[in-house]
Amino acid sequence: MPSQVAMVRPNVTIKLVGAIHDMTETVRIALDAMGGDNGPPVVVAGAALALQRHPTCQFIFCGDQAKIAPLLDGNAALKQVSRIVHTEVAVKMDDKPSQALRMGRRTSSMWLAIEAVKKGEADIAISAGNTGALMAMSKICLRTLPHVERPAIAAVWPTLRGESIVLDVGASIGADAQHLVSMAIMGAAMANIVLNLPRPKVGLLNVGVEEIKGLEEVKAASRILQDANLPGLDYRGFVEGDDIGKGTVDVVVTEGFTGNIALKTAEGTARQIAHYLREAMAGDWMSRIGYLFARKAFAALRTKMDPRRSNGGVFLGLDGIVLKSHGGTDAFGYAGAIDAGFALANNGFLAKIRDQLAQSMEQHLAELATPAVPDAGTIS
Amino acid sequence: MPSQVAMVRPNVTIKLVGAIHDMTETVRIALDAMGGDNGPPVVVAGAALALQRHPTCQFIFCGDQAKIAPLLDGNAALKQVSRIVHTEVAVKMDDKPSQALRMGRRTSSMWLAIEAVKKGEADIAISAGNTGALMAMSKICLRTLPHVERPAIAAVWPTLRGESIVLDVGASIGADAQHLVSMAIMGAAMANIVLNLPRPKVGLLNVGVEEIKGLEEVKAASRILQDANLPGLDYRGFVEGDDIGKGTVDVVVTEGFTGNIALKTAEGTARQIAHYLREAMAGDWMSRIGYLFARKAFAALRTKMDPRRSNGGVFLGLDGIVLKSHGGTDAFGYAGAIDAGFALANNGFLAKIRDQLAQSMEQHLAELATPAVPDAGTIS
Repeated sequence: MPSQVAMVRPNVTIKLVGAIHDMTETVRIALDAMGGDNGPPVVVAGAALALQRHPTCQFIFCGDQAKIAPLLDGNAALKQVSRIVHTEVAVKMDDKPSQALRMGRRTSSMWLAIEAVKKGEADIAISAGNTGALMAMSKICLRTLPHVERPAIAAVWPTLRGESIVLDVGASIGADAQHLVSMAIMGAAMANIVLNLPRPKVGLLNVGVEEIKGLEEVKAASRILQDANLPGLDYRGFVEGDDIGKGTVDVVVTEGFTGNIALKTAEGTARQIAHYLREAMAGDWMSRIGYLFARKAFAALRTKMDPRRSNGGVFLGLDGIVLKSHGGTDAFGYAGAIDAGFALANNGFLAKIRDQLAQSMEQHLAELATPAVPDAGTIS
Repeated sequence: MPSQVAMVRPNVTIKLVGAIHDMTETVRIALDAMGGDNGPPVVVAGAALALQRHPTCQFIFCGDQAKIAPLLDGNAALKQVSRIVHTEVAVKMDDKPSQALRMGRRTSSMWLAIEAVKKGEADIAISAGNTGALMAMSKICLRTLPHVERPAIAAVWPTLRGESIVLDVGASIGADAQHLVSMAIMGAAMANIVLNLPRPKVGLLNVGVEEIKGLEEVKAASRILQDANLPGLDYRGFVEGDDIGKGTVDVVVTEGFTGNIALKTAEGTARQIAHYLREAMAGDWMSRIGYLFARKAFAALRTKMDPRRSNGGVFLGLDGIVLKSHGGTDAFGYAGAIDAGFALANNGFLAKIRDQLAQSMEQHLAELATPAVPDAGTIS
């Protein structure tokens, strides 16, 4: 189920890799070895797990050599495809972004991982560190793509129909109509690549499906998307909170405050129900026997609900791929984030998203320049 | 689990009634018989169910006599404690609030139910109709309480620790700091009464617990609540989406857009997991046998997750009690809303909330008038 900012699932990864690319192509991954609640032990163990699944990975570990090297010494296969970029500076989990930039710009393990992407030494950077700091550094180091004002964080959300992309789950607070429209385009481009959908269905998150409801900026974005009828996405109007889990659309667009709260509320609800279920099964002896008989089914359910299986929020709109892993994850979860990063890099994600953005935004801008009856496209 | 705008649970009702009041006291309930997806059959059957549990109830059915009377004829006990206020005008589920007011002010079944409260003929009004119309009519007919600018809709949300009050789940979009503060006070007053807590713990919903995060108005409200140190509530700072289900605080305050999306996202997640669970249990024969053994546990879980058990969003801040039942509910769910309404009316909810609001707001206003160091109360 939904985890913090952490949604791309390994199975998506594997599907894509098999379908599109040659497995022998090298993917170079820069890791902020000091990021996350657990630092190098989890990052190195996660990389070791991911390497077993993707033998063409190469790693750059950014961080304290004295802590990373002994861990690599314990794994010859991993050590062979890895190098360390040493620094003693690390961003703390509770640093404010401004603090992180002041202390760690150009010097911290987080910055060095992002910079490896900037310099073309890595195809993707991954950090389990502080989200605000990671976004601030990514923006400064990598810059945004043409036509993008602000980046967004996209999560892959498991639904009853498969998976959907939800954005923004916490990059920035508030969004004007234009930002919502560019998120719709970016989210659709990601769904095109990650979920392999030629023309993803896109919805704007709102409090009701009636035209009259909602924030002014959401209504304005809806009119723009309706009028534009972009080739890269199939705009379906407003969706509500319960439509996310239903999988009503492939891409759910909202500003970062609401998106983050929706994501964490879903996560909390999933944990709550898991708790109820455990409690119910530990009740009388009949239930316990029932649990024993059905334990295979429960194991499958547990796997389905394991947040570690969907670990990795993708930063969209930057001129480079950065992935945020859950700060509190273990090696299994961290390997899931690497899986997701591997798939994105291996499928030319950045080039494709840049192309689709340019194409959609140019059409969108051309249409903006064309005078239209203001309310013609209001949806019902 | 959380349902649309529908959270007050019957068990709370019963506990309160037993603890505080004489069961022989009459509670007069005005019902919008035409509201909801199913209209009179569900409303009348729901009232019949509720009457069995609360024999001191009396009902005013507002709506089409030709449709209500035959249903009452089938239940002598209910007929004896009921009267019909006839009207052929009914607000439609998809009417805009402005439309509903134009067509149904003073004439619709919804208006007449609210007006019965205004006139002192009923202690509470319940409608399963269109939320926007019900709120618009309630505001015009009943007016807001002193010190309240805008009403809010409060839901009782089941949590791992018991129950919490979450508001606003959809009365209005956006909230300035002052509105957030008055919602904190109203929510705490409701928690005091409904959850029987002398000084409820209150949190503001935000995207992070760090001081730097969040919307300006949420941060400003936090400073006010921190500085004020009100007697009626224990302000605990920011909470995140996953804190709702955990029950970290007793009252979660947010503006209506985010609150509605959080509520519906939780509802969608609950349905999604229930679906996974059914699927898992219908798998191989071992799972099916396990299900048979544990069926008592599953029945208990189903009851716990039944949204009909927590049916009723309470409109807070009005000079009268109005309850919104889920539009698509059945008689069992509608009876749950009546249960909740019965408890509120039977416990002098309105008088208590008015007192607590006055007390808290007067202190709050007195403190606002006292000069203070602007940033002294910033929380960490």
